[in-house]
Amino acid sequence: MTQSELIAIIEEVRAGRLTADGAARAIGQPPAVDLGFANVDLERHDRCGFPEVIYCEGKTAEWVESVVRRLVAAGQNCLATRVNADQSDHLARLFPQADQDRLARTFWLPVNPPEARGQIAVITAGTSDLPVAQEAVVTAKAMGCSVSLLADVGVAGIHRLLRQRDKFAGADAIVVAAGMDGALPSVVGGLVDCPVIAVPTSVGYGAAFSGVAPLLTMLNACSANVVVVNIDSGFKGGYVAALIARRRHDKA
Amino acid sequence: MTQSELIAIIEEVRAGRLTADGAARAIGQPPAVDLGFANVDLERHDRCGFPEVIYCEGKTAEWVESVVRRLVAAGQNCLATRVNADQSDHLARLFPQADQDRLARTFWLPVNPPEARGQIAVITAGTSDLPVAQEAVVTAKAMGCSVSLLADVGVAGIHRLLRQRDKFAGADAIVVAAGMDGALPSVVGGLVDCPVIAVPTSVGYGAAFSGVAPLLTMLNACSANVVVVNIDSGFKGGYVAALIARRRHDKA
Amino acid sequence: MTQSELIAIIEEVRAGRLTADGAARAIGQPPAVDLGFANVDLERHDRCGFPEVIYCEGKTAEWVESVVRRLVAAGQNCLATRVNADQSDHLARLFPQADQDRLARTFWLPVNPPEARGQIAVITAGTSDLPVAQEAVVTAKAMGCSVSLLADVGVAGIHRLLRQRDKFAGADAIVVAAGMDGALPSVVGGLVDCPVIAVPTSVGYGAAFSGVAPLLTMLNACSANVVVVNIDSGFKGGYVAALIARRRHDKA
Amino acid sequence: MTQSELIAIIEEVRAGRLTADGAARAIGQPPAVDLGFANVDLERHDRCGFPEVIYCEGKTAEWVESVVRRLVAAGQNCLATRVNADQSDHLARLFPQADQDRLARTFWLPVNPPEARGQIAVITAGTSDLPVAQEAVVTAKAMGCSVSLLADVGVAGIHRLLRQRDKFAGADAIVVAAGMDGALPSVVGGLVDCPVIAVPTSVGYGAAFSGVAPLLTMLNACSANVVVVNIDSGFKGGYVAALIARRRHDKA
Amino acid sequence: MTQSELIAIIEEVRAGRLTADGAARAIGQPPAVDLGFANVDLERHDRCGFPEVIYCEGKTAEWVESVVRRLVAAGQNCLATRVNADQSDHLARLFPQADQDRLARTFWLPVNPPEARGQIAVITAGTSDLPVAQEAVVTAKAMGCSVSLLADVGVAGIHRLLRQRDKFAGADAIVVAAGMDGALPSVVGGLVDCPVIAVPTSVGYGAAFSGVAPLLTMLNACSANVVVVNIDSGFKGGYVAALIARRRHDKA
Amino acid sequence: MTQSELIAIIEEVRAGRLTADGAARAIGQPPAVDLGFANVDLERHDRCGFPEVIYCEGKTAEWVESVVRRLVAAGQNCLATRVNADQSDHLARLFPQADQDRLARTFWLPVNPPEARGQIAVITAGTSDLPVAQEAVVTAKAMGCSVSLLADVGVAGIHRLLRQRDKFAGADAIVVAAGMDGALPSVVGGLVDCPVIAVPTSVGYGAAFSGVAPLLTMLNACSANVVVVNIDSGFKGGYVAALIARRRHDKA
Amino acid sequence: MTQSELIAIIEEVRAGRLTADGAARAIGQPPAVDLGFANVDLERHDRCGFPEVIYCEGKTAEWVESVVRRLVAAGQNCLATRVNADQSDHLARLFPQADQDRLARTFWLPVNPPEARGQIAVITAGTSDLPVAQEAVVTAKAMGCSVSLLADVGVAGIHRLLRQRDKFAGADAIVVAAGMDGALPSVVGGLVDCPVIAVPTSVGYGAAFSGVAPLLTMLNACSANVVVVNIDSGFKGGYVAALIARRRHDKA
Amino acid sequence: MTQSELIAIIEEVRAGRLTADGAARAIGQPPAVDLGFANVDLERHDRCGFPEVIYCEGKTAEWVESVVRRLVAAGQNCLATRVNADQSDHLARLFPQADQDRLARTFWLPVNPPEARGQIAVITAGTSDLPVAQEAVVTAKAMGCSVSLLADVGVAGIHRLLRQRDKFAGADAIVVAAGMDGALPSVVGGLVDCPVIAVPTSVGYGAAFSGVAPLLTMLNACSANVVVVNIDSGFKGGYVAALIARRRHDKA
Repeated sequence: MTQSELIAIIEEVRAGRLTADGAARAIGQPPAVDLGFANVDLERHDRCGFPEVIYCEGKTAEWVESVVRRLVAAGQNCLATRVNADQSDHLARLFPQADQDRLARTFWLPVNPPEARGQIAVITAGTSDLPVAQEAVVTAKAMGCSVSLLADVGVAGIHRLLRQRDKFAGADAIVVAAGMDGALPSVVGGLVDCPVIAVPTSVGYGAAFSGVAPLLTMLNACSANVVVVNIDSGFKGGYVAALIARRRHDKA
Repeated sequence: MTQSELIAIIEEVRAGRLTADGAARAIGQPPAVDLGFANVDLERHDRCGFPEVIYCEGKTAEWVESVVRRLVAAGQNCLATRVNADQSDHLARLFPQADQDRLARTFWLPVNPPEARGQIAVITAGTSDLPVAQEAVVTAKAMGCSVSLLADVGVAGIHRLLRQRDKFAGADAIVVAAGMDGALPSVVGGLVDCPVIAVPTSVGYGAAFSGVAPLLTMLNACSANVVVVNIDSGFKGGYVAALIARRRHDKA
Repeated sequence: MTQSELIAIIEEVRAGRLTADGAARAIGQPPAVDLGFANVDLERHDRCGFPEVIYCEGKTAEWVESVVRRLVAAGQNCLATRVNADQSDHLARLFPQADQDRLARTFWLPVNPPEARGQIAVITAGTSDLPVAQEAVVTAKAMGCSVSLLADVGVAGIHRLLRQRDKFAGADAIVVAAGMDGALPSVVGGLVDCPVIAVPTSVGYGAAFSGVAPLLTMLNACSANVVVVNIDSGFKGGYVAALIARRRHDKA
Repeated sequence: MTQSELIAIIEEVRAGRLTADGAARAIGQPPAVDLGFANVDLERHDRCGFPEVIYCEGKTAEWVESVVRRLVAAGQNCLATRVNADQSDHLARLFPQADQDRLARTFWLPVNPPEARGQIAVITAGTSDLPVAQEAVVTAKAMGCSVSLLADVGVAGIHRLLRQRDKFAGADAIVVAAGMDGALPSVVGGLVDCPVIAVPTSVGYGAAFSGVAPLLTMLNACSANVVVVNIDSGFKGGYVAALIARRRHDKA
Repeated sequence: MTQSELIAIIEEVRAGRLTADGAARAIGQPPAVDLGFANVDLERHDRCGFPEVIYCEGKTAEWVESVVRRLVAAGQNCLATRVNADQSDHLARLFPQADQDRLARTFWLPVNPPEARGQIAVITAGTSDLPVAQEAVVTAKAMGCSVSLLADVGVAGIHRLLRQRDKFAGADAIVVAAGMDGALPSVVGGLVDCPVIAVPTSVGYGAAFSGVAPLLTMLNACSANVVVVNIDSGFKGGYVAALIARRRHDKA
Repeated sequence: MTQSELIAIIEEVRAGRLTADGAARAIGQPPAVDLGFANVDLERHDRCGFPEVIYCEGKTAEWVESVVRRLVAAGQNCLATRVNADQSDHLARLFPQADQDRLARTFWLPVNPPEARGQIAVITAGTSDLPVAQEAVVTAKAMGCSVSLLADVGVAGIHRLLRQRDKFAGADAIVVAAGMDGALPSVVGGLVDCPVIAVPTSVGYGAAFSGVAPLLTMLNACSANVVVVNIDSGFKGGYVAALIARRRHDKA
Repeated sequence: MTQSELIAIIEEVRAGRLTADGAARAIGQPPAVDLGFANVDLERHDRCGFPEVIYCEGKTAEWVESVVRRLVAAGQNCLATRVNADQSDHLARLFPQADQDRLARTFWLPVNPPEARGQIAVITAGTSDLPVAQEAVVTAKAMGCSVSLLADVGVAGIHRLLRQRDKFAGADAIVVAAGMDGALPSVVGGLVDCPVIAVPTSVGYGAAFSGVAPLLTMLNACSANVVVVNIDSGFKGGYVAALIARRRHDKA
Repeated sequence: MTQSELIAIIEEVRAGRLTADGAARAIGQPPAVDLGFANVDLERHDRCGFPEVIYCEGKTAEWVESVVRRLVAAGQNCLATRVNADQSDHLARLFPQADQDRLARTFWLPVNPPEARGQIAVITAGTSDLPVAQEAVVTAKAMGCSVSLLADVGVAGIHRLLRQRDKFAGADAIVVAAGMDGALPSVVGGLVDCPVIAVPTSVGYGAAFSGVAPLLTMLNACSANVVVVNIDSGFKGGYVAALIARRRHDKA
């Protein structure tokens, strides 16, 4: 509940149109959008700047559909991640106008597209990191940012990164996705003056431990401007980068 | 062996109907219900207040069937958990009167339903936690409690929980199922005066490590009334909550 | 803020003694007891049934002192745990009337002692588990319960437990503290019909990993009535056991 | 190379039938049975008391077949473990006289059966531990021991174990297989005066971590006569128990 | 080497004042400030927006002193972290004008203080998290931001946070330091529209595993605007928050 | 309670000297030797073949003293392990006749020394493993075995082991203590036909992880006759080896 | 960019055929072979002595094909590892002249085969380690070395290794692949005077933890000449061994 | 025993100066230098190219002294590592001519210094890695190599490394010591054509986990020429680098 809604209720009390008891009930328990299996957070956009995003794992296609409908009905943009093949097919039939990215496994149905502002770069250490990186790209674009993608410039051939420095040097924020040794964000971090969001990926084998190795590398990055999100969380990487980028272009 | 059974045997000795040696044998080795592959614990209900519950993983449908028959023959209520599709079909043919819940993966055959008493609330952080939560719901109901379920009120939208506080404020005990960050039990614990049974779920990815992350969060909960059970153990969550709830309504 | 406080504020608005705007401010930001280094939660007792307990690790003796004074000034009972030698000496000089237990490392200053009700048992696997068990004992007594302690009855000599069964059979709840193999709670759980709060201790060496081994044992306890708290958390064990025990004797 | 073989070679030298240089070569590099993909250890029986046992995982059926043939050709008993369905079918066609146990996943082809001696007991905590236990049973029988099996007597119903104590009290060695909390070996160890070989199983879920929880429990067993083998290693459990048992009946 | 330096060298070649070979050497190996035990990165400020920060652990006081002198000589601001008592005393004698914070264990010697811009909030879950939070405060101030600190508002008493929401609602970025369950960043993240930098602390015991528990919680935060840095890395938390905050107020 | 004690009680009943009720009480709850802080298991020797051994960590010298006195009063041999300097001095004053080994950190007070029988070998990989090995030596001797010690024959110089093969080839059981790579038990196991008890030690650094590396090595030993005990548990290694050795020389 | 290329550019400047600005651009950002999804490192051979090797996991067959084509077009030898069945079939159709090894899962297309020099030995502990060992064999051969393979000589039958010592004693470098206890490299290391590259394999079960156990064993190898690569990384084992071997035969 | 020694013995047999039995005994059990607490491996130099190196942790100064004396008496060079202050003082008094390095914690007493050959480079990511790097330097020098040291060139300022490339480009082998993110070896590996021995250090805090983070990074290094040794094992890093370097200059 926003400050202004609260004032509105109290105004009703002052005007005598609502009893004190009724106001207390209203303030304490305003109706939540409870679908039984889900409580849709329709105020997320107002509080956090972007609507609730649907995480599709472990849900039936019908559950996902219901939340999509509820968000759309409320006039909110709808982004879903980790969409599996069944969910994707189901949603494609019902919402043919939506944008689905099979590599990123995302669903994007913009009701009210955000204003374009901010520039981010997404960099990957290897080709196998592309699905995670693409989730970041889709997310950041959904939030209104323009995005440049630079793939497969891992540190075993450091000149590949150095030579293409102008593809990312001017970004408002950078997302770096890397598996295996996860060394790339430290190097990128030392070359730029903006925040670097490091996304460890589960690419690799053996002692990569499904992303644990690059996760630890990134948490210990010797460059001070590197922060970390969960393994394979291209979504969160793109989200925070876009948040930083577009706020930079708003009036603070 | 109960105290009264023991006295009965010794009475037989005193009455001369049993030799000292025979009594010693009897006390030391009363017959156990040994099916070869299983030793059914028919005294569990007397000792612990609820019959032995069948954990179905790693068992053949026939093994499960045999234990069900043995419990029923002894006049005991029969609850089975982690029932897979094959076992479920097999049991459905043989015990059509039983209650099977496909979401919770449970089998419930009440021979002698428990007296209704106690009230518990089951709360989930996300929609994907529902299968675990439902196992708690089925278990608590089997033990005679009434149960209210509140789904998808995770801390990213804390108002969803606060606004529906009266759905759980009066419970005798609360079960909270959460994956990912596992933060919900700490928050719930700080709002109520009853015990909170936290159930970490394997929902999430990457550094959630199949439930390890929420497990650790819950063990470190800053609210003093939070206790923890095994990952995905909706059964144990519901069991202990019901134990607390219904004993509160018994004469101590 | 309780429901009645909220109604009081709105009554002021209705009576014209408070503007809508002032009420909104009051509801949104009532004064917290902010000491700069601590925000004392004076409403904890009303919400949760027991005042905020002071965790002393990483705090200066002066910080602890200030919170004690603030709680006492508010007429609340004051329990502190993990009190080190310096803090203990400092507090002993200032609050000579308080009860300090050096084995449990606790400080207890009852301003308004709770009504006596409920019975719990505290059991340890070994002698070395006693400091943790004693923290549970002190906590449960502070909450008004009577406590019986049974020490060193680990499963290597299972008869020690079985022969003293009547020392814990009638308890409202049982705390079991064990290190090393952590096997005792499973056995105790199978003998009783009340909840068992298992407290893993850091007693042991090598593959005990400072309490990880008994923690895992307890989370996997084959008895359904066993729940777990953090390693060495005698406090939480005693707290939840007492919560269960004394609520059993309240009118539900 | 045994001491007597070595003496024989040197005798050849002394007799002038072998040059010093040839002898050195012979002593340094006696022919190994190198099949290219395997070096069959035909001296294992002489050194260790039982022939090499074939571990089948990661091998083609043909590779397994070749080693079986080589052992049989050398007049040695042949035991294979972790036999998968393909390997089992392949071997069944070629060696119809062999004994295959589908629960234990073993293949047993006795060319020269060992003398019968020694008595071991195999105990399981639950029904789901039976495949591991059965591997121990098959192995111990192959080594000439008689074996008694007692299943599903976990500590949640400790009387099941106590009442059947005479089924294992007289054994020369005991194997205890348990998953989940792994508490049973500690209890069994405290009841007997022979060594207890604890076999953790991967039975359980969540914080059982595929056998890690019972493994740690067993390594920390508070009974001094408990030793541990690898997770799910029924083979090693049965092997060592049989070694202890049958040597007890040999002349030391 | 900056683009302009590179052009300058090539100009020298074109002007005939430098041979091709000499230029190649110059471009390939420009002089680094190699002190033998350290290579001071004097270009860090130009590349990344802030000079190299000295991490003092594992270094002699003399080594630290030398790097400080070298930075000062180059006209750069000098921040050092993890300063121990010996280093602190040594530096205090030599640089009495520097600002040392004993709680944060920092040394700050501003030669050319940064322009003031940007606003960040630092929030802690408990009082024991203050040393880590203070390192964030010092760092952010050194970078020119104004900082508000809100301590001890953990989720066990969620109203403490909600009631003081206006202390952090308008920040450009927020740092949240928390140990134990590490649940606070998830809750804060759900209340604001700016990035939240979560700093896990080693506060807690047992299954907190010196910060691993809150680290995992934060990596799995259900709020999309939460990023994470290393355990106890107040420095990095403050650094990135300040980077975001002050860039927001620069012309992009 | 032994079978014969049970028969004696029942005889009393049959003879009319004890009521049935009294007998039940006696059978159910015979007096345990409860010292408050310890429950001394005086029946351990009868059940398990050796009296209870005192583990001294985390105990006051007075607690240890009391248990020693109680065991001696019962005519039992008394072995204590992990004796620290304070406990050692305290015990030396009171029991000057006892045998204390400062390297092994043991206390041994034989009231009724066991019959000599059985031969074990104790082997170490390095010199630094000697304290653990010596604990095994002391324990096995206390149990009546003769012991030979072979130190520092790790696999980096495998000939050292092979050349001294006759020092361990005839043992009834072998204890192998090793840290770092823990490879020695696998090699020893392949050379002998008796059980090998592997004791991982915390010797080593870095990725030895205080004994975890050799523990895992040993659990995965490719020799089938290798079993494992806890890290640094020389006591348990010696105990089980002696159990195997001396039982081999008893009449089975 | 090599030193000579750099000099060539600067010569162009000196000759007036290139502006300073153009040279700076050329030096700073020479064209990378950016395929969008991959940045092929065509200078790898010049810098590191062998062309970029294609790691195929997580890539489409088409992506792999494109990189192969690009390398071949540049006249470089092309080695690919971790080739799955689909990729293998796809490549077999397009490059029938290439050498594919189904056991090693490699693809080898030599455009310009390396000069033959150097001798390495590849040794495995068991038969199941062969796929990993074969990847090492293929790699080392691709680099121009001759390779001898010795399989299944694990330490449980140490004589198998000792008797075939001349198969590896003269190698320039040795690769040892082992799963389970991973003890073999330590033993081999103690027998030779060349470097030993230890490759842990994921062979084994239970506490082998998919290669973690042998990895730790090898990192802690008591032989000083043992170095380690990632679990199952036969490729890296063969690569480094070949690097050492062939450089030994170059003029240093 | 070398091949020639073996031939000599057999010659004795052929000449009739030794019985077959005596020869067998000689071959099987040649005298080992058994000091009771240590078995000195005097053949290490002949087998492996360098004498046994003394690892001093967990040993008394007297034990170390005895092994030094025994090596010296055998005319072997003596290197000891991990020398603590007590051992260092003790040895300094007895062997004043020895070279002790307090930073590296080494003792070096060359009886017969090795021929000078080979060139290695030792590189560190930070200043705090110097003690580990220095252990590598001392070891490599003891083996006859010349060594260049380049400190504090971590990837946060990658130009520091690139600009000093000629300090390591021509080395026969390179040791890279790094803690925290451990990213440096991957970058160095991509710049050179010789093997890179990566040494993870325990430098760092929090999620560096005492060297685990850089260890994993290095095991997953994307450069194919990187191998890894144990955490903080500067000794092994220097040893293997020197082995590679000097063998390159021997006649293969």
